[in-house]
Amino acid sequence: MTRTLDLAVIPGDGIGPEVISQALRVIMASLENTDVDVATTEYNLGAEHWLETGETLTTETLEQLREHQAILFGAVGAAPNDERIPSGILEREILLKLRFAFDHAVNLRPSRLFPGSVSPLSEPGQIDFVVVREGTEGLYAGNGGQFKTGTEHEIATEVSINTAHGVRRVVRDAFQRANARRKKLTLVHKHNVLVNAGKLWNRIVNEEATNYPDVTVDYLHVDAATIFMVTDPARFDVIVTDNLFGDILTDLAGAVTGGIGLASSGNINVDGTAPSMFEPVHGSAPDIAGKNIADPTAAILSGALLLRHVGLCEQADAIEAAVERDLAALVDAPAAPQRATTEIGDAIIAQLSA
Amino acid sequence: MTRTLDLAVIPGDGIGPEVISQALRVIMASLENTDVDVATTEYNLGAEHWLETGETLTTETLEQLREHQAILFGAVGAAPNDERIPSGILEREILLKLRFAFDHAVNLRPSRLFPGSVSPLSEPGQIDFVVVREGTEGLYAGNGGQFKTGTEHEIATEVSINTAHGVRRVVRDAFQRANARRKKLTLVHKHNVLVNAGKLWNRIVNEEATNYPDVTVDYLHVDAATIFMVTDPARFDVIVTDNLFGDILTDLAGAVTGGIGLASSGNINVDGTAPSMFEPVHGSAPDIAGKNIADPTAAILSGALLLRHVGLCEQADAIEAAVERDLAALVDAPAAPQRATTEIGDAIIAQLSA
Ligand SMILES: CC(C)[C@H](C(=O)O)[C@@H](O)C(=O)O
Ligand SMILES: CC(C)[C@H](C(=O)O)[C@@H](O)C(=O)O
Repeated sequence: MTRTLDLAVIPGDGIGPEVISQALRVIMASLENTDVDVATTEYNLGAEHWLETGETLTTETLEQLREHQAILFGAVGAAPNDERIPSGILEREILLKLRFAFDHAVNLRPSRLFPGSVSPLSEPGQIDFVVVREGTEGLYAGNGGQFKTGTEHEIATEVSINTAHGVRRVVRDAFQRANARRKKLTLVHKHNVLVNAGKLWNRIVNEEATNYPDVTVDYLHVDAATIFMVTDPARFDVIVTDNLFGDILTDLAGAVTGGIGLASSGNINVDGTAPSMFEPVHGSAPDIAGKNIADPTAAILSGALLLRHVGLCEQADAIEAAVERDLAALVDAPAAPQRATTEIGDAIIAQLSA
Repeated sequence: MTRTLDLAVIPGDGIGPEVISQALRVIMASLENTDVDVATTEYNLGAEHWLETGETLTTETLEQLREHQAILFGAVGAAPNDERIPSGILEREILLKLRFAFDHAVNLRPSRLFPGSVSPLSEPGQIDFVVVREGTEGLYAGNGGQFKTGTEHEIATEVSINTAHGVRRVVRDAFQRANARRKKLTLVHKHNVLVNAGKLWNRIVNEEATNYPDVTVDYLHVDAATIFMVTDPARFDVIVTDNLFGDILTDLAGAVTGGIGLASSGNINVDGTAPSMFEPVHGSAPDIAGKNIADPTAAILSGALLLRHVGLCEQADAIEAAVERDLAALVDAPAAPQRATTEIGDAIIAQLSA
């Protein structure tokens, strides 16, 4: 008797399709000799679809996506010089719309410096932390406006909206993760300036802390957090923060741990009311698209997060271990030529059965 | 006949007084053998003053400060565990109040990797850029609130307010600086998400660009900007950005160029309606206060920015060159013990006449 893992796949734009096809290969390979079958349904969303139809993501497609167990997402985004596509529309109306519609409360972004991956820091230390980024609120609420637009008296606003409900569920998730790891939680905010949101985040972290007596809680202003990210990233275990600070810190964390080509993420619906979505942190990178040179590792590691999320923990661990061995093998081959996207996929699959 | 440079001095809390006294010594030394006298009036503001009087910065003191030609500012901020002082009150009611009351449109933050200062990056390259941070608007407007405070239904908001006037003056300043430097301006924002503010910043940068045909204009999302800050900081010449992104990027830039102990700043009133204010980017660092171990270099370099602002360019250049020689001298003495605050002041003064 076999079980079926029913995945929606959104390859998207640029390098999205290339990296997602490697991620799928690795997922399949990890499930060989198990009783799990994978069924994939591909959804063609992104620049091309928009140019053909004028649609980003319809309610109908959204409802189809909702039926799947999980979503594997590549990247969306037009080339910066493509003037046919309004700037940011694909990101907002596809990626952000999915995060909001499927209530992806927790944007989970692990950062590890694997042996063999090269940090721009001269003494990076042992980096192994996760950023638990709030995924549905803050400055991403799309709440703001323009007044006297285009004049010398224009005023433009952006409103960060933070709810106790939204903050609590991400803080709780972060405490659970910290409790299962090295038991250290760092709240990152800017409460000396953003006093209202800051008080809410502080209150809820303090309230939840009483349920996790073994977790040490620490606080850093976001500006100071960026300093530690380059001077002592090994200090971090679990970081919990809002949507925008999480966006900024995880790109920096990706860079520090060997490049955004390795940074994976999961957009997690914490109460199971809609599918969670897994995607590399990197974007569509139109400049290197179609050349078979993009690094699929971030997408592959996002596949591992997906498998863990649906309870296939052994396979998730196996993929992460395979990536680790693949990168470690590079240590002894420092002068190796840049590997093709497909070669990296091959190598990780080979490591899976090594 | 002598001229008098009339300075207000706010040493503040923690290491503020220690670093400011070195900055003043260096300013004085740089003006020896000139026709410029320095008159200083010290204003006792900060934690101690608040504990004694319950006052942060009164209207009366503000009006006295307004009469001076420029302000030299150390740092304010209580120790994080000092529960007598409400969190962030000194920063908001003294530092931010001054920036807002004196209309410090441009928060100028140069970043240079001096030979001899140690970057955490293994290949930092030639780092020499300035961040032109908007200083009076954005999320620092103090506009937001709490609703259903303390309940499970609490909503906390923070409003970023951006005006055409505020954006234009900082963008114009940035173009002028770029035009006088390597002619490259990078706008940092997050216009794919913060669409309203993003459109305003984009529009004004595009409009001003027509006045500076020799300046190349570039755009980066703030998350991507942090990546380049650690992978290729040498690419930057002038960065123009909003208040919060500027706050975050300049701490990171400080770390990357050898530590926040070297990062100077000027809060500039661009139309001369109130005194400009010069301060190290670092805070009051209560943990190392009173030990004569804080690095006064950031305060000393802020003094140089002050002198340049009041037209004493030769002296400003001389101080910067002295700091450069002082740091370079460390290259040959890598195992030197940590220098005391006063020793660094001595060394830079010695370099001034070297
Ligand atoms: C593409 C963009 C809207 C997105 C974000 O800001 O969240 C991206 O930067 C990310 O981190 O996933
Ligand atoms: C102390 C704080 C309010 C301040 C800021 O956020 O501007 C500081 O971080 C800075 O960069 O000068």
